[in-house]
Amino acid sequence: MAIPRVVIIGAGFGGLQCARRLAGKPVDVLLIDKNNYHLFTPLLYQVASSLLNPSDIAYPIRAVFRHAKNVRFRVAEVTAVDFDAKVVKTADGTGIPYDYVVIAAGSATNFFGLATVGQVAQGLKDLPEALELRNHILRCFEAAAGECDEAARRKWLTFVVVGGGPTGVEYAGALSELVRLVLVHEYPELDLSAVRIVLIEAMGQVLPLFSETLGRDTEAELEKRGIEVRLNTRVVDASDETVQLSSGERIETKTLVWAAGVKPAVLAAVVDVSRSRSGRIEVDKFLRIKGRQNAFAIGDIASYVQDGGEVPMLSAPAMQEGRHVADTILRAMRGEALVPFHYRHKGAMATIGRNAAVAQIGRMSLTGFVGWVAWLLLHLYSLIGFRNRIAVLLGWAWNYVWYDRPVRIIVRANEHAPNSHSPPLIVSQHESRKVANG
Amino acid sequence: MAIPRVVIIGAGFGGLQCARRLAGKPVDVLLIDKNNYHLFTPLLYQVASSLLNPSDIAYPIRAVFRHAKNVRFRVAEVTAVDFDAKVVKTADGTGIPYDYVVIAAGSATNFFGLATVGQVAQGLKDLPEALELRNHILRCFEAAAGECDEAARRKWLTFVVVGGGPTGVEYAGALSELVRLVLVHEYPELDLSAVRIVLIEAMGQVLPLFSETLGRDTEAELEKRGIEVRLNTRVVDASDETVQLSSGERIETKTLVWAAGVKPAVLAAVVDVSRSRSGRIEVDKFLRIKGRQNAFAIGDIASYVQDGGEVPMLSAPAMQEGRHVADTILRAMRGEALVPFHYRHKGAMATIGRNAAVAQIGRMSLTGFVGWVAWLLLHLYSLIGFRNRIAVLLGWAWNYVWYDRPVRIIVRANEHAPNSHSPPLIVSQHESRKVANG
Repeated sequence: MAIPRVVIIGAGFGGLQCARRLAGKPVDVLLIDKNNYHLFTPLLYQVASSLLNPSDIAYPIRAVFRHAKNVRFRVAEVTAVDFDAKVVKTADGTGIPYDYVVIAAGSATNFFGLATVGQVAQGLKDLPEALELRNHILRCFEAAAGECDEAARRKWLTFVVVGGGPTGVEYAGALSELVRLVLVHEYPELDLSAVRIVLIEAMGQVLPLFSETLGRDTEAELEKRGIEVRLNTRVVDASDETVQLSSGERIETKTLVWAAGVKPAVLAAVVDVSRSRSGRIEVDKFLRIKGRQNAFAIGDIASYVQDGGEVPMLSAPAMQEGRHVADTILRAMRGEALVPFHYRHKGAMATIGRNAAVAQIGRMSLTGFVGWVAWLLLHLYSLIGFRNRIAVLLGWAWNYVWYDRPVRIIVRANEHAPNSHSPPLIVSQHESRKVANG
Repeated sequence: MAIPRVVIIGAGFGGLQCARRLAGKPVDVLLIDKNNYHLFTPLLYQVASSLLNPSDIAYPIRAVFRHAKNVRFRVAEVTAVDFDAKVVKTADGTGIPYDYVVIAAGSATNFFGLATVGQVAQGLKDLPEALELRNHILRCFEAAAGECDEAARRKWLTFVVVGGGPTGVEYAGALSELVRLVLVHEYPELDLSAVRIVLIEAMGQVLPLFSETLGRDTEAELEKRGIEVRLNTRVVDASDETVQLSSGERIETKTLVWAAGVKPAVLAAVVDVSRSRSGRIEVDKFLRIKGRQNAFAIGDIASYVQDGGEVPMLSAPAMQEGRHVADTILRAMRGEALVPFHYRHKGAMATIGRNAAVAQIGRMSLTGFVGWVAWLLLHLYSLIGFRNRIAVLLGWAWNYVWYDRPVRIIVRANEHAPNSHSPPLIVSQHESRKVANG
């Protein structure tokens, strides 16, 4: 009997856990991602604030599966899934047959229909965006240093961060420390007390998923760090030089960082499935895509309903779902009864800066130094690979002792020359057959 | 009396040494570079071969001068120098007045007039190029893994490196180790014995500036590592898929790495000075630009003649010249007699791979493990900044023990959206006055 092939679309938290669980099992796994690395997104904001190197939080996927003979990997962009023919289609028109498919394509930044904002805002959702933001912030300070008009200089030195969830809070805190602890020593020509960092949150508290007390604590910590917090406020419009708020306030700025929300990856909208109101792929209690055979969806792209609501778009449920689907596939292969998925919420954390983080674990709240240590340990533990743990730990220790952000370089890889010979990113043709488009 | 202003164009080895020597002295120094970091170019090939992070070899220039109150820095591109008006002009049209100017703008890749080669070849001269090359090589392996046509796959897996100087030798060696020691474990679908690395050198030996014996040793070491060495051979033409050699041989490849030579930076050609046959700015025995007042040129861009020949375009003479010019400016300010420059050649080194390097120090030759240790120590010592030394040392140790190249990620920073608000890179206007163009 042929060994069943499991195709996993996406090597984020969900897809990677699923593939790892299937390593060494009697299946052929093909893991597909548009990047050749798994990204530890919770620390992206530290790349964007010049603290960590990209490779500290990006782990080559092939290295993860070096010793797993039944897991293969391909760099490719999946454009469609033909559930009837059981084929995954990629951008170059090839098709990859599957026996089981797991859609784990994640999410994208949500601009909530604000077209002007989408044009000027900077995301913080993937590595190219984090590097772009790092470059941009450093350029702003260089531009301010060369600007003699005070109003123009103020624009360079005003930074608006939208979204009071963990990403926005953590980035605002890290940016504040970059300015107050590092750059202040290196721009004698600038009065850095003129720097403004404004954090904007639509709800009535920062960290809306945490308790109200932790929200207040966090707000106070942010304000202690010179960050202006605007609650119950939304961005309604933006241009190259201004951000317009729902309160009527108008902020002159060259920097609008958007961490206000995510939506399911575009693949959710192009595959022929039923979707929830939030656009996520509807799955049953076994994480099977409703109305489809041998097809699963997990993580941000999947709408799993528990206790009357969708499981949130976070790494923890994605990882639990990934492992569960791997087990479900193995059970189905053995003809065993399937077990329904149940998400266990273990807590949430966010760091504000040196010695300050908040954590909510069940009914327990941790704040300040204790919360910060808990945050550090959990994130170190969650990183993949011994080297990355060491590199991140050393980076943090360096920063802690020396108040330094070592990765303050403005650089981006050259684009390959137009008529040069950089390869397209294609999926294996050894193992696939051409599928007619459409 | 006003404090004289020294404007230094370029923060490479020469410019940086000059600025450091002037720190704390009774001058105002303005250091200008198009990047915000000083680049330790001798280790660029290790970034291009996935071993080091960009920030390990790029040090923020403002951090170097954090404690030097009389040294300021600006990110800007210098487009001209008006020696009569004593003004340095930058790309945005502003002009910076000087009392002394030091041109240390370095060099650029030399394609020796081969236009087709210039279009398809990849350089290894700056950080964006090194990152581009890293991405390209990793993509080649992904593309080969997805290619079922054997001839096409061979093209992805053939790598031509042109130039048998230290850069070409070191990169070819590092690429060979990346393939044989790391990637071989992660591409089970590929037969990596099909990988070809061809090193092309126009002269009769590799490392032409070293002794013939060391050249032969190096060639043997390269061949032991599976690298094909072609001596007395030039590239005469290239396309997306082929490289044509002077021997008549034609190599089908998607990768042409150009490390065959450098020429003076473009600034040498646009300033009104006399130039040597090689296009470098002619200077007298005090490194003063011939026929100009209070203007100096150092490093790759300067033609300093000693013992009947131009001092080579290497970091060592640039650094010595930088320090000498700083001293010369201070002497001139004090009305003291000037001291002629004399370049002291201390030796040359190149590493081929694990436990193998060659060094020539006067009449002494080091090879093998001893040469390799000497190479490691010298390069660690030469890096700027304690953190970079530690980071590079740890990177090397990790690689040495685990045979791992940790930075195997294909990533580049996003381009800032066209209508977004990324700052232009401008020079200070506080301290400058507008100068009419032309």
